[in-house]
Amino acid sequence: MINNSINRKLRMGMVGGGKGAFIGEIHRIAANMDGLIELVCGAFSSDPGRSKESGEALFLPEHRVYGSYQEMIAQERQLPEGERMDFVSIVTPNHVHFEPAMMALENGFHVVLDKPMTFDLDEAKQLQQKAAETGLLFLLTHTYSGYPMVRQARKLVRDGALGKIRKVYVEYPQGWLSRSSEQDGNKQASWRTDPAKSGKSGCMGDIGTHALHLAEFISGQRTTHLCAALYTYVAGRKLEDDGNILLRFDGGASGVLIASQVAAGEENALKIRVYGENGGLEWSQQEPNSLLVKWLDQPTQIFRAAAGGMSPEVAAFCRTPGGHPEGYLEAFGNLYKSFAWALGAKLAGKEWQAGEYDFPSVADGVRGMAFLDCVIRSNESDEKWTPFTV
Amino acid sequence: MINNSINRKLRMGMVGGGKGAFIGEIHRIAANMDGLIELVCGAFSSDPGRSKESGEALFLPEHRVYGSYQEMIAQERQLPEGERMDFVSIVTPNHVHFEPAMMALENGFHVVLDKPMTFDLDEAKQLQQKAAETGLLFLLTHTYSGYPMVRQARKLVRDGALGKIRKVYVEYPQGWLSRSSEQDGNKQASWRTDPAKSGKSGCMGDIGTHALHLAEFISGQRTTHLCAALYTYVAGRKLEDDGNILLRFDGGASGVLIASQVAAGEENALKIRVYGENGGLEWSQQEPNSLLVKWLDQPTQIFRAAAGGMSPEVAAFCRTPGGHPEGYLEAFGNLYKSFAWALGAKLAGKEWQAGEYDFPSVADGVRGMAFLDCVIRSNESDEKWTPFTV
Amino acid sequence: MINNSINRKLRMGMVGGGKGAFIGEIHRIAANMDGLIELVCGAFSSDPGRSKESGEALFLPEHRVYGSYQEMIAQERQLPEGERMDFVSIVTPNHVHFEPAMMALENGFHVVLDKPMTFDLDEAKQLQQKAAETGLLFLLTHTYSGYPMVRQARKLVRDGALGKIRKVYVEYPQGWLSRSSEQDGNKQASWRTDPAKSGKSGCMGDIGTHALHLAEFISGQRTTHLCAALYTYVAGRKLEDDGNILLRFDGGASGVLIASQVAAGEENALKIRVYGENGGLEWSQQEPNSLLVKWLDQPTQIFRAAAGGMSPEVAAFCRTPGGHPEGYLEAFGNLYKSFAWALGAKLAGKEWQAGEYDFPSVADGVRGMAFLDCVIRSNESDEKWTPFTV
Amino acid sequence: MINNSINRKLRMGMVGGGKGAFIGEIHRIAANMDGLIELVCGAFSSDPGRSKESGEALFLPEHRVYGSYQEMIAQERQLPEGERMDFVSIVTPNHVHFEPAMMALENGFHVVLDKPMTFDLDEAKQLQQKAAETGLLFLLTHTYSGYPMVRQARKLVRDGALGKIRKVYVEYPQGWLSRSSEQDGNKQASWRTDPAKSGKSGCMGDIGTHALHLAEFISGQRTTHLCAALYTYVAGRKLEDDGNILLRFDGGASGVLIASQVAAGEENALKIRVYGENGGLEWSQQEPNSLLVKWLDQPTQIFRAAAGGMSPEVAAFCRTPGGHPEGYLEAFGNLYKSFAWALGAKLAGKEWQAGEYDFPSVADGVRGMAFLDCVIRSNESDEKWTPFTV
Repeated sequence: MINNSINRKLRMGMVGGGKGAFIGEIHRIAANMDGLIELVCGAFSSDPGRSKESGEALFLPEHRVYGSYQEMIAQERQLPEGERMDFVSIVTPNHVHFEPAMMALENGFHVVLDKPMTFDLDEAKQLQQKAAETGLLFLLTHTYSGYPMVRQARKLVRDGALGKIRKVYVEYPQGWLSRSSEQDGNKQASWRTDPAKSGKSGCMGDIGTHALHLAEFISGQRTTHLCAALYTYVAGRKLEDDGNILLRFDGGASGVLIASQVAAGEENALKIRVYGENGGLEWSQQEPNSLLVKWLDQPTQIFRAAAGGMSPEVAAFCRTPGGHPEGYLEAFGNLYKSFAWALGAKLAGKEWQAGEYDFPSVADGVRGMAFLDCVIRSNESDEKWTPFTV
Repeated sequence: MINNSINRKLRMGMVGGGKGAFIGEIHRIAANMDGLIELVCGAFSSDPGRSKESGEALFLPEHRVYGSYQEMIAQERQLPEGERMDFVSIVTPNHVHFEPAMMALENGFHVVLDKPMTFDLDEAKQLQQKAAETGLLFLLTHTYSGYPMVRQARKLVRDGALGKIRKVYVEYPQGWLSRSSEQDGNKQASWRTDPAKSGKSGCMGDIGTHALHLAEFISGQRTTHLCAALYTYVAGRKLEDDGNILLRFDGGASGVLIASQVAAGEENALKIRVYGENGGLEWSQQEPNSLLVKWLDQPTQIFRAAAGGMSPEVAAFCRTPGGHPEGYLEAFGNLYKSFAWALGAKLAGKEWQAGEYDFPSVADGVRGMAFLDCVIRSNESDEKWTPFTV
Repeated sequence: MINNSINRKLRMGMVGGGKGAFIGEIHRIAANMDGLIELVCGAFSSDPGRSKESGEALFLPEHRVYGSYQEMIAQERQLPEGERMDFVSIVTPNHVHFEPAMMALENGFHVVLDKPMTFDLDEAKQLQQKAAETGLLFLLTHTYSGYPMVRQARKLVRDGALGKIRKVYVEYPQGWLSRSSEQDGNKQASWRTDPAKSGKSGCMGDIGTHALHLAEFISGQRTTHLCAALYTYVAGRKLEDDGNILLRFDGGASGVLIASQVAAGEENALKIRVYGENGGLEWSQQEPNSLLVKWLDQPTQIFRAAAGGMSPEVAAFCRTPGGHPEGYLEAFGNLYKSFAWALGAKLAGKEWQAGEYDFPSVADGVRGMAFLDCVIRSNESDEKWTPFTV
Repeated sequence: MINNSINRKLRMGMVGGGKGAFIGEIHRIAANMDGLIELVCGAFSSDPGRSKESGEALFLPEHRVYGSYQEMIAQERQLPEGERMDFVSIVTPNHVHFEPAMMALENGFHVVLDKPMTFDLDEAKQLQQKAAETGLLFLLTHTYSGYPMVRQARKLVRDGALGKIRKVYVEYPQGWLSRSSEQDGNKQASWRTDPAKSGKSGCMGDIGTHALHLAEFISGQRTTHLCAALYTYVAGRKLEDDGNILLRFDGGASGVLIASQVAAGEENALKIRVYGENGGLEWSQQEPNSLLVKWLDQPTQIFRAAAGGMSPEVAAFCRTPGGHPEGYLEAFGNLYKSFAWALGAKLAGKEWQAGEYDFPSVADGVRGMAFLDCVIRSNESDEKWTPFTV
């Protein structure tokens, strides 16, 4: 029950996410969860019939279900202020990120966009510039930074509890692309392994960018150099499905980033460990309500969501008391919630204190695209270290 | 995107759950999660001002925020069919369960009610009878049966994978009442330890009923006799805050039920183990996406939510692919979702296949109240075994 | 490298433990581990040929391998003091505990004896009296008290870290008797399920006594009343293979003891949890190098063997640095080591400080037999509580 | 009770391992554990007084405690065959590996040697040649390959259960050198961080070699190229205390090797994961009795030591039934046991079937030294990949 400053739900339009899509439904649940946002319109598919069918299943009035995002943005703009959507949530494959996002910004709509932000780095920079020009809000859904224990981890590092950070190990093994599912009609596999839809990276674009964001989010250090070795294990696949990367950070830390979609038997085993002079942190996405804090000469502590020892500003992102597990959808919901608070404040013309609407944005998206560029360059190079520049 | 048969969201009214309440917000998130239900009205507090303030924070129109549940039920009944609430969700302390539920049924509203169902067994039986007479739907929120892995456990037992069931160990240790928080202004502690609001049982009513329901839900056997030893560890407390119970079941199994609210350091550590001739099951609420299945002569298996090995009818209750953890709110949401499917079908005049709208109902509530009666009798008795009758 | 006061290895004779036996080999490894004890003679089987064969495989000289324990005790007594065994280790089934132990004591030999101490309580009391009369040392191998983390748990309770103890949950589920293995030639199963060899209890004698000892060892409280429900799940079996017991303790704690040998799929899953006013402990035998210490308002701590936070007097029972796991054999070895230290000191005529040779002894054995008596009586009674007296 | 072919214990002499040493005591316990080996002599320290004191504490006769390994080897050679040591176990720092090992081989004694095998690669090759010439047995104590679940892992890979191996992740984080303990009188830290005693590598020599051995032992593939980044985090330290390495294998797999001694809060957290086309393996040294086997479309299995599903030839290396945890000392003991079986057979002039005396030997030691050479070269190079040649 947090006042969002404008005394009404924020109105969301959606691009993509029709029947059979995975991430669109996730976005809807996340946006819906806290009662701060309502879905008011959508262009759910490039196939108008499919879009219509999806809108119907979502109980939308027929005239707010559009045949294309172009139509949606144009039409919504014509609606009275009290009715038209406030922001657009874009949940299409990578190659359909840039254009709807740019068009939304140009037409005064705030934007929620999935990662990786765009098809290539140049598009990302254009979006960044446009967002800066327009002053519109932009949420890039690096979901994992929405987990309370990830935020607690970041806070412990920021507060200096671990001392100077020396090591960052981040890994993201999945197994679902261990076979050539893209040839068996798996729609998720299909576009993710297609360079025309995904861009020049497969595994690293899909999950490596999350790993990098998490590493920098928690450690508070930024990658300066990397050394990448990418692999394509499934015959006939055009994009890498696996990769190992050495990292060096600006604060003196070093590390490793592992991402794989052929680690057969793994689900979504994102995990990060960060070590400083006095101790280390360990967090696993699959058991997200625990954060192990290891100390040099004292017993390891298990920090738990909404339980004793947690910082109050982080605990505010827990919806339930300790022991009532929250998960991926709630983490996703935290991003939408922060976005809703910020947007509500903005629409009400109020100041909003930095830190309270802590969500990844357009700069994180540019950084992710620069990471992919750097990884591809490094992989093709015989040099050990490739500088990471944005 | 599941059609709910009537092509609109179901309309929910809420009794209780104003600012500062715990379980009301949980119910709203759960009901909201899947986009099948919308909150349209409420009597959020017995204090009309507080109710109004809560309704405002929830963006409800002023005229749908009522000063009492009596007013709400009476007024809503006057509204046109296309506008008035379809069902009422009652999230008040135990002593305010029976009256609003009975009044709702009498006025043609379906009911969602928190456990334990009523203040005493007699009230529970009256509700059961009224529900039967009216044919209205009744959801009793034994949340834990909404977890996919709990349903998978039940399915494995039903399918005979474990052979005849011999042992059921269920435990529910919490630590949050280890001190006399009820005297320090903790509202949750206050009513739960007050016999005038909770009824004749404390710990067993609050969490023991969940444990019993889970044990019977998974094992498919029903308790026939029990032997209870209740304790009150915190000085001055009027209701038991802890108890150990031996169980005997109608299918020949025996077991133990442990519940405690003074197990200092525990959060909400509900756990169940069920053993049959061929193997056993183990599920822990705090890591709810895993189900251990232990075999007599083969390696233990870890069944995981939305992953390989899961029964399709259970997997339908997962919103995300394997490795994207779901938790308590999603389990709660599953109860509301099943209820919404059943209610949508009913309102559309359609048949609904048994099993698909699998949710605990009024008979489970009566059983829980009978359990509390039996536990209290057993505790006061010198006889080892007290028969469990409803 | 700890001086054992007498500058030589202690000389052990063994009764039982020939080829095919389980626990005899365990005793030999445990006794051998720290280089303080050497096996010098044995009567390994009631079958003289088998005994001889076993002695040969153990590299013993022919004349120190005896055809019976009677012969061994008699002959060894005749040997010169510098050659004859110092103590006897008795590793036979329960019905062959009392006689060799009594004969050893009568002939001046110290005794190591497996649990349960004897066939019945009366025998146990006779041994206790004889041990007191002779002043000979007596080690009863309640192995689990030899684990460093069990000792750390005890120390934390003794030091008052948890406050007054309220709850003790101890459980010992095994699955290996889930089928009638005793009829398939399994020697271990065979004598354990035979009342002529095991005594009047099966599961409780074999593993329930361990659970009780552990509960009292760590909690520092003694059982005063119990309520037992025993079961025999495998058809045709003459002794119980499962049981659930409610406990009350002299310090005001209450608890539950679960033991089962038909918990199919479990190995040797002894686990104990103890809760006080401020926090709780949890230790699992299958992951014995960790001790969870849970606090009311602070993060749970993981105490680890030989790592930071451990009491020095307990750390002395770790042979390796933190992270080099020790297990069951090392715990067993700790009992033999403490016994060797105490016996070395005694033989050297030195004082030995209490607490340093912390090992279970004849009084623990009597207590275990009294527990079995009480459990059997309670199981047959309709009264809820049976007083536990020794 | 396994006949070692020669009907007597094998006689061990020890070089190093006096009072205050860590690994010497480990070797003695491991050698002693199964009753197949007895310590008969030693040169426990380069300080003759200290050596003598140590020998006394170990109950050795004065004349078998030597002031130097040179003296020991020379004197023992003079003893009658039925009395003199059979083999020497060398447990000194790295710079005192080569000379005693070479001298032992030259004098007809079999050798047990700690890793890394020598001070540099050249010494290692000399030992390899000498061992080949003499036909003497050589055990290099890569302890972790002695764990039953590691052997089970290897067997599953060899049997093709996982399909073609694609990924190998091995990590060995420790935290004990997070501060400059070498300057605070920590003897273990002191020689390990001193290039004059350790050789040219610190962390990689001490633990990286173990990680590499384990990776190749389980995966059955051999490293062909690596890319190393070494770091020294503690100021003033002369050898690296941390490193990240990318790996490529001859069977087409790729991987990562992480080793650190500044991962503050970690104990000895060696862990390996191996993924093939059909599934993956995960084994953690700190919980060594479980082996996770993950499958692409089926539930993960937990293989457990001495429990159902284990290969009989691996189960032979378990001393206790399932659920009785074994650890580091037992793994170490398995190497000594295999060595004792092989040596007993050799001394008895018998054939011994390959595979049964599975223990790491001189070739593994050479490989480890070549690894260190390659790592150092790679670290100093700007080239991404350095070929790994022996």
